[in-house]
Amino acid sequence: MKKVKLYDTILRDGSQGEGISFSVEDKLKIVRKLDALGIDYIEGGNPGSNPKDAKFFRRVKNIRFKNAKLTAFGSTRRAKKRAEGDPSLQALLKAGTPVVTIFGKSWDLHVRDVLKTTPEENLRMIKDSLRFMKKKGKEVIFDGEHFFDGYKNNRDYALKTLKVSQEAGADWLVLCDTNGGTMPYEIESIIKEVKKRFKIPLGIHTHDDSGMAVANSVIAVKLGATQVQGTINGYGERCGNANLCSIIPNLKLKLGIDCLTERQLKNLTAVSRFIDELANLAHNEKHPYVGSSAFAHKGGMHVDAVRKNPVSFEHVEPELVGNRRRVLISELSGKSNILYKAMEYNLDLKKDTPQARKILEDLKKLEDEGYQFEGAEGSFELLMRKAMGKHRTFFDLEGFRVSVEKREDNRLISEATIKVRVGGKREHTASEGDGPVNALDNALRKALEKFYPVLKKVHLTDYKVRILNPETGTEAITRVLIESSDDKESWGTVGVSANIIEASWRALVDSIEYRLLKERERKTSRDA
Amino acid sequence: MKKVKLYDTILRDGSQGEGISFSVEDKLKIVRKLDALGIDYIEGGNPGSNPKDAKFFRRVKNIRFKNAKLTAFGSTRRAKKRAEGDPSLQALLKAGTPVVTIFGKSWDLHVRDVLKTTPEENLRMIKDSLRFMKKKGKEVIFDGEHFFDGYKNNRDYALKTLKVSQEAGADWLVLCDTNGGTMPYEIESIIKEVKKRFKIPLGIHTHDDSGMAVANSVIAVKLGATQVQGTINGYGERCGNANLCSIIPNLKLKLGIDCLTERQLKNLTAVSRFIDELANLAHNEKHPYVGSSAFAHKGGMHVDAVRKNPVSFEHVEPELVGNRRRVLISELSGKSNILYKAMEYNLDLKKDTPQARKILEDLKKLEDEGYQFEGAEGSFELLMRKAMGKHRTFFDLEGFRVSVEKREDNRLISEATIKVRVGGKREHTASEGDGPVNALDNALRKALEKFYPVLKKVHLTDYKVRILNPETGTEAITRVLIESSDDKESWGTVGVSANIIEASWRALVDSIEYRLLKERERKTSRDA
Repeated sequence: MKKVKLYDTILRDGSQGEGISFSVEDKLKIVRKLDALGIDYIEGGNPGSNPKDAKFFRRVKNIRFKNAKLTAFGSTRRAKKRAEGDPSLQALLKAGTPVVTIFGKSWDLHVRDVLKTTPEENLRMIKDSLRFMKKKGKEVIFDGEHFFDGYKNNRDYALKTLKVSQEAGADWLVLCDTNGGTMPYEIESIIKEVKKRFKIPLGIHTHDDSGMAVANSVIAVKLGATQVQGTINGYGERCGNANLCSIIPNLKLKLGIDCLTERQLKNLTAVSRFIDELANLAHNEKHPYVGSSAFAHKGGMHVDAVRKNPVSFEHVEPELVGNRRRVLISELSGKSNILYKAMEYNLDLKKDTPQARKILEDLKKLEDEGYQFEGAEGSFELLMRKAMGKHRTFFDLEGFRVSVEKREDNRLISEATIKVRVGGKREHTASEGDGPVNALDNALRKALEKFYPVLKKVHLTDYKVRILNPETGTEAITRVLIESSDDKESWGTVGVSANIIEASWRALVDSIEYRLLKERERKTSRDA
Repeated sequence: MKKVKLYDTILRDGSQGEGISFSVEDKLKIVRKLDALGIDYIEGGNPGSNPKDAKFFRRVKNIRFKNAKLTAFGSTRRAKKRAEGDPSLQALLKAGTPVVTIFGKSWDLHVRDVLKTTPEENLRMIKDSLRFMKKKGKEVIFDGEHFFDGYKNNRDYALKTLKVSQEAGADWLVLCDTNGGTMPYEIESIIKEVKKRFKIPLGIHTHDDSGMAVANSVIAVKLGATQVQGTINGYGERCGNANLCSIIPNLKLKLGIDCLTERQLKNLTAVSRFIDELANLAHNEKHPYVGSSAFAHKGGMHVDAVRKNPVSFEHVEPELVGNRRRVLISELSGKSNILYKAMEYNLDLKKDTPQARKILEDLKKLEDEGYQFEGAEGSFELLMRKAMGKHRTFFDLEGFRVSVEKREDNRLISEATIKVRVGGKREHTASEGDGPVNALDNALRKALEKFYPVLKKVHLTDYKVRILNPETGTEAITRVLIESSDDKESWGTVGVSANIIEASWRALVDSIEYRLLKERERKTSRDA
């Protein structure tokens, strides 16, 4: 039996985050993913508040859960009405989940200003609603909304809302920091008081408005809370809910609490990225544990230390959460970074050789010009090979021309023409595009696919532009970072120039050369 | 006298964050901004480790500080050498700052595995280096690197590193959670122990690898630490440093500690956005206090509650940190915004008129397309005038054509041709440039200067490109923000399109129209 239960509310509270909108299909995918991860309670939505959630609860009935119990979320009955026949409670029953989560007001200010009813009636609303659900055979979680604000404002009343919930047979009392404004030392003293008075299991539900959601959750568990409510990636309204991707590894690896198995924990990074993809939100690189920068080392001293002993700059092993160590290439890097990369790229590079020095010199020179290789390892591998005399080009450019024309009818036409030579053969072709870079990309690949059919599968997946010294206006230096993919892998390349077309061109050429280089390596190893 | 001092290390530790690379110019701008905000210590860099930082320290000498003291960061002397003549300590002296921050190893594992020296020699290295700096008259901050890991591993040794620092005359002992792996309850018990033993001021320096950096910093202050090291927006290596934009409001608004004045605190949101812009990193919308979503309300129940009483779903007033409430997908918040702007622009706009509704509609439509007017008030004023029927155009475009040509000799030529009409007169001209946008800008102004000589003084001072949905490669939407200046004022304009040339064109046209509009207003008021 697990000591601490994980409760995910991304499908309800998480969906209130700005820019988040899940379709019913998305929600079903997420449910399966959370169940496989090992989450104990999945809150599916508020069936009484919107028709999309009601539809979801009909469709989710076909899923057979391996780990999780599904819960439906809703409010207490309306003021001065009976629980029987209350539309919100009826919708909860109709959802057909084994668990229901009923939220009630624990802050008297909300009772007065928002519900506009009496404190006594609010207590009856909580008691009636919970008792009704217990009679229907449900596992019942009581979410004390604004519990901490309520406690600070009117301690006795906040505690009464828990007391009537206990009397009504609630299986869980969950203390909510709904506005996210509570400090860790307040959480500590309040939970200690609550813990003295109530014997049924406690849960914690926090928001990140003060940057304290993760800390407050962990502190609550340390003090005896046995349910943690949060969301994958911390999605949620305003600053977000407590982030389960931070809380889970803290509980497991720091507090030694078996909230997931070791094997399940290894899926955490993948689940985090999956949810980002589905939400169509950019991955937060700095995310504790699961971010792509979480174990990325840039300073030369750090890389040197990590090579000597990883624990020197890593608080846990990245593999435990399914993440990995990365060594970044930048002006702050020293020889250690480069040797580490050579090893990664399978290049035979020795310390203190002219080749190693040449690479470091080229790197510093290019970075002075505005290059940055952190997101462009494809270009960096090419740079290393060039410095080591291990590179050959795959085509020669005779010239290109890109034009954008706007006519009085407001139509805009972007066109590129290009002339390349491959092994004595010349190709002269042209293409249109959505903009000058897109047109150039199209034309270049059209010209080369004839010679290298493997390029047909390559496409750009990311395109970033940064102006480096913008104080000089449009004469500034432009850095273009692109990411390319085929069906197997993806790689980043970079180009810098005063001219955005030239910068894009350089990144495009690196992208293609990198892919062709990998193709040649594969062939060589097959032939060997 | 302030009770808690704020120490920012974005220029050193922050620069070790992935994707961050500040030029010397950037660094000087940041220093000015942090000083104006009210930061007490600004760590400028590590002058011994890279030439860019050394250059920065030469240039920064011209800045006269209002609030802050500048500090230079460096390591203790090398093992088995003297402090006098140590290159790192010499570089620190050469930086010429009133304060130096010396970091030393507090974790015996680092002494053994990374420094590869004896525990005793490391203590001597700390003592000698600090004493050397005190003799030179510096205020000396000792950063005990990995102090918490060291304490957990070998308590006595970690404490000894503090003891020798105190003996050497250190002004501050800063306890660093360098790997970010320490839990709040550990911070608490360790700081209590340290506090018992040392009487000189303590500081705290944390990283966010467990999502605890802000909580750990606040807990340390609660227990008596009087210096907090962190970075604006939490930039820093791996998961980032402790985020000053969360810590400062927590200290001021929750703990009642005067680390900034009320007036300075109101600048926090603006400084946060400024640093994002300079780093060219996407603004973190969910950022506590200063994020654009931090006070954004989406759920219908919440919007209703906030209208009844803001405190119901806001833990602090957004205005206290210079942020604002937003109501998502709701006309109400939008309208008051627009009325506010109309007042600012001297436009006679009434609530609940068709004009106000039209502006709101246009705004929503453009924002859907990717426009953003926060940095482009020039464009927003034009939008309002157009919606109110108060705009007249200054020229008509018949067409333009921009081309970039690359020949085999590697020469690159960017050229723009343009045809415009002003009051029945046609101008057809052409210009080259450093890139397609520069060429277009040159050609457009060349064509119009003939009719509007005032444009001769206008020039672009900033040009930013952001790709909005990069997952689609070069077909993504591009947003161009430009800033223009003449000898009197500067103004921002924006353009969005799938085509970067078109997006730039729109921003350029707005820039010119805005300037000509202001010229006409000036003439009208002179004539009146």
